[in-house]
Amino acid sequence: MGTEGDKGYLDMGFARLDTMRAARTGFPEVVFCEGKADAHIGEIFCRLYEKNGEVLGTRATPGQAEIVKRALEEGYVADSGVVDMFSYDAVSRIIKIEKNDKERKGLVAICSGGTADIPVAEEAAATAEFFGAKVARFYDVGVSGLHRLMSVIDEIRNANCIVAVAGMEGALPSVLGGLVENPVIAVPTSIGYGVAEGGRTALNAMLTSCANGVVVVNIDNGYGAGYVATQINRLAVRVF
Amino acid sequence: MGTEGDKGYLDMGFARLDTMRAARTGFPEVVFCEGKADAHIGEIFCRLYEKNGEVLGTRATPGQAEIVKRALEEGYVADSGVVDMFSYDAVSRIIKIEKNDKERKGLVAICSGGTADIPVAEEAAATAEFFGAKVARFYDVGVSGLHRLMSVIDEIRNANCIVAVAGMEGALPSVLGGLVENPVIAVPTSIGYGVAEGGRTALNAMLTSCANGVVVVNIDNGYGAGYVATQINRLAVRVF
Amino acid sequence: MGTEGDKGYLDMGFARLDTMRAARTGFPEVVFCEGKADAHIGEIFCRLYEKNGEVLGTRATPGQAEIVKRALEEGYVADSGVVDMFSYDAVSRIIKIEKNDKERKGLVAICSGGTADIPVAEEAAATAEFFGAKVARFYDVGVSGLHRLMSVIDEIRNANCIVAVAGMEGALPSVLGGLVENPVIAVPTSIGYGVAEGGRTALNAMLTSCANGVVVVNIDNGYGAGYVATQINRLAVRVF
Amino acid sequence: MGTEGDKGYLDMGFARLDTMRAARTGFPEVVFCEGKADAHIGEIFCRLYEKNGEVLGTRATPGQAEIVKRALEEGYVADSGVVDMFSYDAVSRIIKIEKNDKERKGLVAICSGGTADIPVAEEAAATAEFFGAKVARFYDVGVSGLHRLMSVIDEIRNANCIVAVAGMEGALPSVLGGLVENPVIAVPTSIGYGVAEGGRTALNAMLTSCANGVVVVNIDNGYGAGYVATQINRLAVRVF
Amino acid sequence: MGTEGDKGYLDMGFARLDTMRAARTGFPEVVFCEGKADAHIGEIFCRLYEKNGEVLGTRATPGQAEIVKRALEEGYVADSGVVDMFSYDAVSRIIKIEKNDKERKGLVAICSGGTADIPVAEEAAATAEFFGAKVARFYDVGVSGLHRLMSVIDEIRNANCIVAVAGMEGALPSVLGGLVENPVIAVPTSIGYGVAEGGRTALNAMLTSCANGVVVVNIDNGYGAGYVATQINRLAVRVF
Amino acid sequence: MGTEGDKGYLDMGFARLDTMRAARTGFPEVVFCEGKADAHIGEIFCRLYEKNGEVLGTRATPGQAEIVKRALEEGYVADSGVVDMFSYDAVSRIIKIEKNDKERKGLVAICSGGTADIPVAEEAAATAEFFGAKVARFYDVGVSGLHRLMSVIDEIRNANCIVAVAGMEGALPSVLGGLVENPVIAVPTSIGYGVAEGGRTALNAMLTSCANGVVVVNIDNGYGAGYVATQINRLAVRVF
Amino acid sequence: MGTEGDKGYLDMGFARLDTMRAARTGFPEVVFCEGKADAHIGEIFCRLYEKNGEVLGTRATPGQAEIVKRALEEGYVADSGVVDMFSYDAVSRIIKIEKNDKERKGLVAICSGGTADIPVAEEAAATAEFFGAKVARFYDVGVSGLHRLMSVIDEIRNANCIVAVAGMEGALPSVLGGLVENPVIAVPTSIGYGVAEGGRTALNAMLTSCANGVVVVNIDNGYGAGYVATQINRLAVRVF
Amino acid sequence: MGTEGDKGYLDMGFARLDTMRAARTGFPEVVFCEGKADAHIGEIFCRLYEKNGEVLGTRATPGQAEIVKRALEEGYVADSGVVDMFSYDAVSRIIKIEKNDKERKGLVAICSGGTADIPVAEEAAATAEFFGAKVARFYDVGVSGLHRLMSVIDEIRNANCIVAVAGMEGALPSVLGGLVENPVIAVPTSIGYGVAEGGRTALNAMLTSCANGVVVVNIDNGYGAGYVATQINRLAVRVF
Repeated sequence: MGTEGDKGYLDMGFARLDTMRAARTGFPEVVFCEGKADAHIGEIFCRLYEKNGEVLGTRATPGQAEIVKRALEEGYVADSGVVDMFSYDAVSRIIKIEKNDKERKGLVAICSGGTADIPVAEEAAATAEFFGAKVARFYDVGVSGLHRLMSVIDEIRNANCIVAVAGMEGALPSVLGGLVENPVIAVPTSIGYGVAEGGRTALNAMLTSCANGVVVVNIDNGYGAGYVATQINRLAVRVF
Repeated sequence: MGTEGDKGYLDMGFARLDTMRAARTGFPEVVFCEGKADAHIGEIFCRLYEKNGEVLGTRATPGQAEIVKRALEEGYVADSGVVDMFSYDAVSRIIKIEKNDKERKGLVAICSGGTADIPVAEEAAATAEFFGAKVARFYDVGVSGLHRLMSVIDEIRNANCIVAVAGMEGALPSVLGGLVENPVIAVPTSIGYGVAEGGRTALNAMLTSCANGVVVVNIDNGYGAGYVATQINRLAVRVF
Repeated sequence: MGTEGDKGYLDMGFARLDTMRAARTGFPEVVFCEGKADAHIGEIFCRLYEKNGEVLGTRATPGQAEIVKRALEEGYVADSGVVDMFSYDAVSRIIKIEKNDKERKGLVAICSGGTADIPVAEEAAATAEFFGAKVARFYDVGVSGLHRLMSVIDEIRNANCIVAVAGMEGALPSVLGGLVENPVIAVPTSIGYGVAEGGRTALNAMLTSCANGVVVVNIDNGYGAGYVATQINRLAVRVF
Repeated sequence: MGTEGDKGYLDMGFARLDTMRAARTGFPEVVFCEGKADAHIGEIFCRLYEKNGEVLGTRATPGQAEIVKRALEEGYVADSGVVDMFSYDAVSRIIKIEKNDKERKGLVAICSGGTADIPVAEEAAATAEFFGAKVARFYDVGVSGLHRLMSVIDEIRNANCIVAVAGMEGALPSVLGGLVENPVIAVPTSIGYGVAEGGRTALNAMLTSCANGVVVVNIDNGYGAGYVATQINRLAVRVF
Repeated sequence: MGTEGDKGYLDMGFARLDTMRAARTGFPEVVFCEGKADAHIGEIFCRLYEKNGEVLGTRATPGQAEIVKRALEEGYVADSGVVDMFSYDAVSRIIKIEKNDKERKGLVAICSGGTADIPVAEEAAATAEFFGAKVARFYDVGVSGLHRLMSVIDEIRNANCIVAVAGMEGALPSVLGGLVENPVIAVPTSIGYGVAEGGRTALNAMLTSCANGVVVVNIDNGYGAGYVATQINRLAVRVF
Repeated sequence: MGTEGDKGYLDMGFARLDTMRAARTGFPEVVFCEGKADAHIGEIFCRLYEKNGEVLGTRATPGQAEIVKRALEEGYVADSGVVDMFSYDAVSRIIKIEKNDKERKGLVAICSGGTADIPVAEEAAATAEFFGAKVARFYDVGVSGLHRLMSVIDEIRNANCIVAVAGMEGALPSVLGGLVENPVIAVPTSIGYGVAEGGRTALNAMLTSCANGVVVVNIDNGYGAGYVATQINRLAVRVF
Repeated sequence: MGTEGDKGYLDMGFARLDTMRAARTGFPEVVFCEGKADAHIGEIFCRLYEKNGEVLGTRATPGQAEIVKRALEEGYVADSGVVDMFSYDAVSRIIKIEKNDKERKGLVAICSGGTADIPVAEEAAATAEFFGAKVARFYDVGVSGLHRLMSVIDEIRNANCIVAVAGMEGALPSVLGGLVENPVIAVPTSIGYGVAEGGRTALNAMLTSCANGVVVVNIDNGYGAGYVATQINRLAVRVF
Repeated sequence: MGTEGDKGYLDMGFARLDTMRAARTGFPEVVFCEGKADAHIGEIFCRLYEKNGEVLGTRATPGQAEIVKRALEEGYVADSGVVDMFSYDAVSRIIKIEKNDKERKGLVAICSGGTADIPVAEEAAATAEFFGAKVARFYDVGVSGLHRLMSVIDEIRNANCIVAVAGMEGALPSVLGGLVENPVIAVPTSIGYGVAEGGRTALNAMLTSCANGVVVVNIDNGYGAGYVATQINRLAVRVF
């Protein structure tokens, strides 16, 4: 077990948990579960829960979710009600330890080009919801059947920020960018084969979009898009 | 000067002109002017004119056009009327020695995403016209302002083949492919900067299009697209 | 279950089936099975069968084929004869729900460089046959033994469109393009090792072909080539 | 000269100016000058000025600026005061036709890693200012001398959006992302040699940033960053 | 079994062990275990132990460690005490046959950006310790929470050489390079996804570092960094 | 079963065996086993044996070797002695059906940089031996311990052709090229990690060798190197 | 001026001329002129002439040729007849100081795919001729018009070694490899645009050739191909 | 003009000169001249001279050197003797304002593979000398003529650090690493053509070196290598 003192982090030996992140950035530290050792992951969630009262974990396997749940059940944290706050979603691979009565504000629209992009889109949606944004989902609205997108475009235009998730040629953000007023956060996915290049073609297409108002995150980075969408949404709903 | 005999080509020492190509493929040999030596280019056009009665040359500089014109004027060919058949277009960089009374049939639509793609689009258009197709042009109809494309889509749908020329993210063929019945030949252009990668991003995006009915040619290869569009158009208008 | 109304698509919650595609493009929506969830794939085939009377599915695993067959058998569709229309081919990985008395017209030639390219070639052939084209197959006619290609070239020249499938250095379309009159659709395959780069070398070689009349689709995209070949063949056999 | 009617664009023959963009996206069309023909650029600025009362042009050469200025002076527009509204900045390569009494709101911070990144940073700054944002500049605050960044970090934290411009290893956005509350728009520049790869290394580094709250635009795309920064800033200062 | 004679190597048939390496370079030959055949690995360790009295092996699987241990136990070497000198560490994947009373001198600092980089960092640390350097470890001090690095920077500055291990955007060496006096050996790791490109982005970022005093080794090459760190440390502690 | 007639190939339905290859190139067709279907591979070896009296197969798995052996045992060929001619080597993954009393001529030297390169080196050696060359092996003579190479260089210089197999930085052919008189065929291997890039770095290093007399084959293509080495050796030993 | 002594090289301060290369490799050192300083190039040719009696220089500009010629004329070498031995060819960019009565033996065939490949082909031809081989040239025999190649294939088959020079898709060596008995040295050229990638596509296509007997040199490396062709030809004509 | 105060940098408006770098890292800030504006470069050298008493500038054009010299001559600094301290070397492109009586200690060896690598090698040498190291130069000792390297290897082994500069296949550091005791800093150069890829092949080859003790810097980064060589040399000569 580590100590914290006034250094602004909790030294766990194998990690230094950033306990002053919420103070600096407005959001607490999130756990990127991919590759975390089984021996460490339970304790990390427990310590962050004690510090922040809520925890978000991304890219968790079902096995990791089971380990975290058991750590909470076995009383590693002082608060017995924490188990009820635990949830795991296999599609988005997200673990949440979350308060039940959270109010959500503003609006973030999450669009996907195809059905195969849904896991990444759901990671973005769950992240934005965890951090307090209302989310509207518009899936399978890719550009090869434009009428599908057009039938929902007025709803999309209501959002403070639009997350556009697409693989293959990644054209959805370009079409959306020409139709909406607020920022489009483009998320390339690794969907596709051959010169889809594991998402690199969609990524480059999004970066060279002929439309204005498009910014991009890494391939399959639904979390990153949901995070920034929440930052933007928060600015829009803040009362001055 | 070379000899031909029954070998099916004219051996000019520095080149072997394929004189049986029209018999094999239905179209005579075309001159790719880029990099051809000044000392050779005039003679190549003259020999091909003598053989085929018409000549098409692509990627010609104004200087090369001047050399070819002078060769024709100086009587290197037996037919004094040939000079009137000569033309050079600086936008498409195409030289034509072409009969005046050519009938054009069917319909090929040439679309471009932006104005910077026009030189490549014009190369495609001029090629298709040279080989006997009627051509309709629809320029600057890129996906960031969809209403521009939608206002002409019904005209485009009338064509036997659609050539879609676009740079940057190259999304135009994907949108077109979902709206038309006949083949879309996608031509990526080298327009764009950064990760546009000189047209590679548009190329890959077109190859991974989520729409059906899209085939692709090399970057900036307007000639190749115009050629295949003519092959397709010719099949459509053939009487059985 | 979703509703359709006049939106032109069937909203299934996890997907929006494009029910007006045949009206727009002349071909109904096809199921790309790779990565589709087991929970969804049966229903997708049933709904598309109800709408279109036939369904084509590509890149299906044997397991997926089993699921679709069972869905049909268990009466998810109102038509008890549908099971007899079902077939699955393990080489091309194609599922068909197809009418038995379909007439096929025109001619598409499918050539492969080697035997390892046959699965992709068969995907192209099955697609073209499903959409109504007659198909002639010419396999293992690669350029390292030219006499094999030459012994069948006259038959190939009869086709309205030639699909040329090849991996490694992908030279087959270049040789074919110089010998035939109609369009050659080149399909690079992922066959080869080292700098074959999973098909990228063949793809680039085909895009830079010195022959005219060659267009290209994504690596291993037999379906896409078969689709466009059918579009071209359909134009050729149309009566005016 | 083109006509507009109710199509939502002005058809100039060589271009279709998107006259309904401000209605759709809140910002009028901007002129990307790179590669525009001398014969067209003057007229484009004049027509857009007539439509929108202001015009922004990016990536303009001094020669292009001269042509635009002359077009305005020669009375191609009905408003004689327009010449006084013209300005050209050689560092950012931006042409503005801008009203003098524009109010600017909120705050966007523009940071650069080195002095060589200033042209791109200035493009972002000028864009944000044109669209109505207050801008604070923090140049040469790269990570190899952290004390330079730390001496201004409190001012940076006041901004609604931070634009971080850097070449070479592109580490500035990662450090900033860990220190601020609002979104960081990372702009990779083509500064550097060898494996800087014309900005690709900085781009990829920014996309894989270990910090949250970082989104990315194309290499050297100061305009795109300034545009989105303004969208975010506008949401923050909007009164509800 | 091979013979050595005066050739400076031991010819084992399948390998030529470099027995004069310590004389040339000051360090004996080390065993890179990855891919070594089970039939050979035990004998290689035994022969090197006989020659050098100590052996270091890197990238060993637990199974290989077991084989080596058994070979030592079964008396393939004349010295029965050798088994007590054997150790295997599963995190760094390092096998050591090492004398117990080794004195360590000078100081090498090993820093890691995140917790996922620890295996590579430990490989560097174990290598430096084996070759006689004192090592201080500073893990999880990445740039997204600078206060963690700043709280230990004075300790790091005491080292004769700093090894900086980081994945993703690889910014740690740039920040360190600006803060310390002695050489920084940067080790990119394959941690990250998408355009992290298996460590290539971190590698290129480190090579284009804006800080001075940074040199780089191959992706995940903790051994190589530890080796050079020891060479530098040895120069620093040498008495003249 | 197919027929051959005078077409110069044996049409097996799934393949066209090139039966006139020996006449054209001096060597009979060889079987590249990787990816060959179990249902076909036995028959292919039997037919080629009947035609040529010997067969070489490369990249065969142990399972494929078993299938071929069984096909021979079960009498698919008329010659009962064929089973004794069968052999399989697990290191080089080569199947041979070979006459026992073959004379070998000339000399080919096969060198490898490390022990991990031996499988590729053995593929080259076995190929050259099958086609009638004497082979001398020099393994583990990489450039980091030059004395190992120098102790055998005089023997290497006796060969008519030198095959140099190396992974990682692939420097062996450069050093050899400067020391020998006859051609060096460089074979890059996929040995190495990180920026070894699966052999691409070694390949490019060999292609840009500062030494003369170096030619290159594809990554891990021991067969190709052995084939050309035999062609060269054959020219050297031919009596005029 | 440098000294040589028994070191086997001539130390010129700025360079160490390898004076024992002919003894080691059978060919004297050749001058790669690209990038050589004007101040050095004259002296280098003079010193090598003095040592070897002949000199070959590649990639020389006309200006460099002029400098070398003047150095010879101004008597920097003791032999006044040397000026008559000097020649420069602008197509191949080769400088020769060569004896007039050289006998040439054996036969090397140099083939090119197109006319744009001729400069590289001529570099190969001139190199082979300088080193003593007879050369036959077959230019513009690319695969898009196979009859051109077929009309000369019997002559090509007479050569001891075939050099195949081609750009774009680089298919010529594959077709040749299937038709000839002796080694094919493939030379990719930088001819082509877009995904020709400056010769990389041709290079990779040649390395992945489906034909046997093909080895490859770097892009545009006519010299390297001519060198190895001569090595092979020399082995073939050697009397035992 | 800027002010400095206690911020540790001099704010010049367009730049923040790092005035506490020497305190942090032991070396003062160096001027990377490439791309610096003419209007700024003179003042930067003057201010740094005033602060540090010496200045080093890299990658300076002759024109920039002229500007700096004139700025010094025109008295922008208070010290009239400064002009005598100025020097510019056109090969290494280095500007020095340097004290005349500087003592140099220890030893750094600078080796180059070819003569074309000398400008980069000289940049390394001049940097090391400026910072106080003795330097020994060994140029044109590439691996295609090993005897040249072997004749000087004993001198090289005396150095505390070896800088190995090479382009093309970059094999020199691998050979050196196997022969010396102290660290080898490998510098890839952009010398070579085709797949030399502007130095990327040499870079990757150096990073994957089979020899120990090799670290790498960016392509053509002689300065960076000279800097670290000095750091290492300084540690070696330090008295304890």
